[in-house]
Amino acid sequence: MNLKDKIRSIMNHPKEGIDFKDITTVLKDAKAFKACIDQMTDLAEGKDIDLVVGTEARGFIVGAPLALNIEAGFVPVRKPGKLPSEIVSYEYELEYGTDSIEMHKDAIKKGDKVLLVDDLLATGGTALASAKLVEELGGEVVGMVFFIELESLEARKILKDYDIKSLVKF
Amino acid sequence: MNLKDKIRSIMNHPKEGIDFKDITTVLKDAKAFKACIDQMTDLAEGKDIDLVVGTEARGFIVGAPLALNIEAGFVPVRKPGKLPSEIVSYEYELEYGTDSIEMHKDAIKKGDKVLLVDDLLATGGTALASAKLVEELGGEVVGMVFFIELESLEARKILKDYDIKSLVKF
Repeated sequence: MNLKDKIRSIMNHPKEGIDFKDITTVLKDAKAFKACIDQMTDLAEGKDIDLVVGTEARGFIVGAPLALNIEAGFVPVRKPGKLPSEIVSYEYELEYGTDSIEMHKDAIKKGDKVLLVDDLLATGGTALASAKLVEELGGEVVGMVFFIELESLEARKILKDYDIKSLVKF
Repeated sequence: MNLKDKIRSIMNHPKEGIDFKDITTVLKDAKAFKACIDQMTDLAEGKDIDLVVGTEARGFIVGAPLALNIEAGFVPVRKPGKLPSEIVSYEYELEYGTDSIEMHKDAIKKGDKVLLVDDLLATGGTALASAKLVEELGGEVVGMVFFIELESLEARKILKDYDIKSLVKF
C-alpha cells in the first residue's frame, strides 16, 4: 500500500506558506492505519526495547500501538501541567519563543532502553527535547521512528547522535 | 491481572479535593498495558464497527490500539484549532464556563458505525459531545468503551441513550 498517497496536504496551515501533512486520512482508513503501524514497527526491528516514548498528541496515536506491537510499555511526553505526578521538564527553542515538554520522573528507570516514536519529524526540536528527558532519567535512546520526515528541515543534523528511521519522506 | 491496583491515585490534582486516577503507571508496564487494551477490546465484542473515535489526548492512547485490534479506522476528536481541514464543532458546559471539541467534517460517512473509546468516564460531558459530533455527520454510535468509570459522577444518566462499558470502576 502506498501510504504517501494517503497523506493529505493542506496548504497554508497553520500559517501562510506551510504545506501541512494531515495524517487523519490515513488513520480513518483501517487498512492504511494498520499498514502504517505495522511498517513503523518493522523499522524498530532488531532492537531490544523496554519502553516507547510518544509525544502529545499525535505521537500517542502511533506510539501506543507500536509499543503494544513490540510488547513494550508506553510513556507519554506531555505539554506543561498535564502530568499529575512529579515531573522532569525540558525547554526548547521555537522559531519565535520557547516551548517545553514534561515527563513523569518515575517513567523511566536507569538503563531502560527507549524508542522514541512520533508521527512527524520536522525540525527535530521536540524529538531532541524528548531524548534529553529520557537521558536525564538514566534511560538510553536506542532509536527514533517517525511516520513522516520533512527532509528539507534537516532534523538529522541536530539529531546526529541518534538512530533515526522514517517511513515516508517529503 | 488486577488492573485496578496498577492505577495510581493522586490526591488533590488538578485541584483540592480531586482524587485523580493516573493511568501512566498502567501504560509503562508492558503487560498491564496489553491487558488493558485487550480487555477493553473484549468489551467491544459482537459489535460491527467501522470507526473508533478517541478524544485528545489520553483517548488516543487507548483508542488507537483498540481500533487496530478490531480492524477499524481511527478518528481523533481534538481541542479547538488543532485539526487542519474543515471541522464540525460542539460546545459543552463545564462546572465553570464551557469547552468545545472538534472533528473533521469528512471523518465520518453517513451510516458509519462508530465506537467511542476513552480512558476515563467522569461526568460524561466530553463523551456526549463526541457522540453528538458523530451523529451530526450521520454516523451511528454503537457503543462507548472506557478504561475507568467514576461511578459517583453518574455519567450514565446523561448518556442513557448509549451502550456503555467500562473496565475498572471507582
